[in-house]
Amino acid sequence: MTTVRLAGFSDGVFAVAATLLVFNIAAPPPGHGPLWDALRYRWPSFAAYVVSFLIIGIIWVNHHGLFQQIARVDRPLLFLNVFLLLVVVFIPFATRLLSEYLQSGPDSHVAAAVYSTTMLLMAVAMSLIWAYAVYHPDLLEDRLDPKAARSTLPRFSSGTLVYVGTIAVAFVNATLCLAVHALIALYYVFDQVSREQPRIEPVDDCPGNPVKVD
Amino acid sequence: MTTVRLAGFSDGVFAVAATLLVFNIAAPPPGHGPLWDALRYRWPSFAAYVVSFLIIGIIWVNHHGLFQQIARVDRPLLFLNVFLLLVVVFIPFATRLLSEYLQSGPDSHVAAAVYSTTMLLMAVAMSLIWAYAVYHPDLLEDRLDPKAARSTLPRFSSGTLVYVGTIAVAFVNATLCLAVHALIALYYVFDQVSREQPRIEPVDDCPGNPVKVD
Amino acid sequence: MTTVRLAGFSDGVFAVAATLLVFNIAAPPPGHGPLWDALRYRWPSFAAYVVSFLIIGIIWVNHHGLFQQIARVDRPLLFLNVFLLLVVVFIPFATRLLSEYLQSGPDSHVAAAVYSTTMLLMAVAMSLIWAYAVYHPDLLEDRLDPKAARSTLPRFSSGTLVYVGTIAVAFVNATLCLAVHALIALYYVFDQVSREQPRIEPVDDCPGNPVKVD
Amino acid sequence: MTTVRLAGFSDGVFAVAATLLVFNIAAPPPGHGPLWDALRYRWPSFAAYVVSFLIIGIIWVNHHGLFQQIARVDRPLLFLNVFLLLVVVFIPFATRLLSEYLQSGPDSHVAAAVYSTTMLLMAVAMSLIWAYAVYHPDLLEDRLDPKAARSTLPRFSSGTLVYVGTIAVAFVNATLCLAVHALIALYYVFDQVSREQPRIEPVDDCPGNPVKVD
Repeated sequence: MTTVRLAGFSDGVFAVAATLLVFNIAAPPPGHGPLWDALRYRWPSFAAYVVSFLIIGIIWVNHHGLFQQIARVDRPLLFLNVFLLLVVVFIPFATRLLSEYLQSGPDSHVAAAVYSTTMLLMAVAMSLIWAYAVYHPDLLEDRLDPKAARSTLPRFSSGTLVYVGTIAVAFVNATLCLAVHALIALYYVFDQVSREQPRIEPVDDCPGNPVKVD
Repeated sequence: MTTVRLAGFSDGVFAVAATLLVFNIAAPPPGHGPLWDALRYRWPSFAAYVVSFLIIGIIWVNHHGLFQQIARVDRPLLFLNVFLLLVVVFIPFATRLLSEYLQSGPDSHVAAAVYSTTMLLMAVAMSLIWAYAVYHPDLLEDRLDPKAARSTLPRFSSGTLVYVGTIAVAFVNATLCLAVHALIALYYVFDQVSREQPRIEPVDDCPGNPVKVD
Repeated sequence: MTTVRLAGFSDGVFAVAATLLVFNIAAPPPGHGPLWDALRYRWPSFAAYVVSFLIIGIIWVNHHGLFQQIARVDRPLLFLNVFLLLVVVFIPFATRLLSEYLQSGPDSHVAAAVYSTTMLLMAVAMSLIWAYAVYHPDLLEDRLDPKAARSTLPRFSSGTLVYVGTIAVAFVNATLCLAVHALIALYYVFDQVSREQPRIEPVDDCPGNPVKVD
Repeated sequence: MTTVRLAGFSDGVFAVAATLLVFNIAAPPPGHGPLWDALRYRWPSFAAYVVSFLIIGIIWVNHHGLFQQIARVDRPLLFLNVFLLLVVVFIPFATRLLSEYLQSGPDSHVAAAVYSTTMLLMAVAMSLIWAYAVYHPDLLEDRLDPKAARSTLPRFSSGTLVYVGTIAVAFVNATLCLAVHALIALYYVFDQVSREQPRIEPVDDCPGNPVKVD
């Protein structure tokens, strides 16, 4: 099986999950005091919206990157991807929980722990997809060296440990936990932007024209 | 007509329906007791969310598989697909009903029966699509033997009977009914993962390069 | 400009609008009487859901058919398509209005008129797209005879008149109006299914291989 | 990286954001006075719906146009696009705010300023994408002259200034501000429709067949 419909279905889920985040932002109807105060008072929903949107954006960019290394999919890989999407769809709920409970005393720790656990599961799912692919090299792009691909696994999975750490932070302070997630997201953005990328010429669909990699 | 836009539209509906499942999970706003208790108390919504997401994932994988055997679509097939999508879109409603009423005495049976009937209709729609295709062999991929394709119909449609059984279980116990749906979904995942798949080389769009099947 | 992204964006809007229809179906939470009675009492939402889903399905099939005759798009055509999508997105609102007010005396006529007007605007938008294309033959597929294409316009636009009629029916009886919309939808399904379709071989992306039309 | 998945993900977000606008339109349930009066009383939601849908449509057409000039994407461009989508997803919230508060005295200015700021950020994001691309000419289509591309930047970014102006108008009168946004949208539609477009033959995927530009 090719990756075309997997990409289409996954992009659809990413797009809908990212867009549904906007429902976490709500303003009271007119007649409940000055609007400006109401919006400022709700800063946690805006902050959580931006952080979660950025995280979904990063997952999407990484997913995109992964499936440029993966040329073929089989059933186990399809279901690992379904597991990833199950977690992605959960992000709007976890975001709403965190933004509603961010300033609610002991409950804020529960909400932040649910949020961090969701991100941990997301990182686990991404690692499982890549681990499965590198141990089934016939699924990889032909130009990839399976051994080299396998050697990227520890670095790729290191994010998992970071997210275990955020669960611990959740029990210290929920606002700090959200700030740490924002920092992790920004780190990933700048890390990915600065890293040297092998440039790949536009894929062409006619066999015989080998994909050129600089 | 080719299957490109059918796949695009269907993937869109699958993706949105799967993502809307998250609205079935709701937490009370702050001030209604400890959050952790509220989340535990709502375990039926989490369980129903996971089961329904898995079912939509399986339908998507199967739909993907079906339309790798089907090369061309005509109007009746398009409308059979619209019927399938009508049922898929109903799944978030049926899921919400089941998770809200799972522990509501006699009403739990009604909710579970609605849920099981939705899954039955989904299986019927999938069977109709495949039955229509195998009896119109000019729609099938050229590499497929129409007779062999036809012979897969009874096995393919056997799921329909299983779902009739779940309607009966709904009237015994709604929680058991949800558990049976979870087991059926897991069975399908492992069955599909373990089954030998003919590997198909990446489709290429230039005629003259025959699709290679191992 | 090619029609690839137009099809992708439109399919996305069709898919989301069709899926949002499910929000028109709501069941009361536990504790408001027997569930079965509550579901039966809400038959208008189920009926309106099925009719509107079918209508969106038919528009999608027709849109698909139109853009198989249209090879290139320009800016005016893109904006005519945006107008069509504006109307399609309105369908979930019109459907909810009709299902809530179907049995509300004089207000039922208003709701049914809004519903019928939405469908009329949809038919107008489809006709404008086709009319624009046939009068700009350089946008049409090369295999199409512009004169023959132009001659299909009156038949194609006749649906517009039918929908004007449903606005009149709305002021007679709202339930009858919904039934008429159901009949029109079924008529279109069977009309399209029975009509002889020129079969088109799968489009191939390599120029030089002419598209074969039977 | 090619632009295929970027287009797919972006089209998904555009489609969902545009469709969610319909949730800003709400009618009261039966029993709250004549329906026709309720609908007329809610004209701001209808007006804001049409204006915002048109704006998303225009962004989509422009995004489509931009990525016909851009052949390759790198990580910074992907994240600039994620920033654009973050703003697009915010549009349904800003639209709801404006339509709810359009006639609420001093709060109407806050709502209109939020709406105008959202549109300003959207214009900024579009300008950043194009600015980044023209200063990284290896990302541009080969047929484009980088110098000529760069010279379009001031005109392309002039919309940003217009949106700064709408923030000022927001503090004068919110209804006027919505009217100005409607006029800007209509101006863009007619400007784009009337402007001479270089016609580009359907892209074909096989190298060796040069893209023909009239």
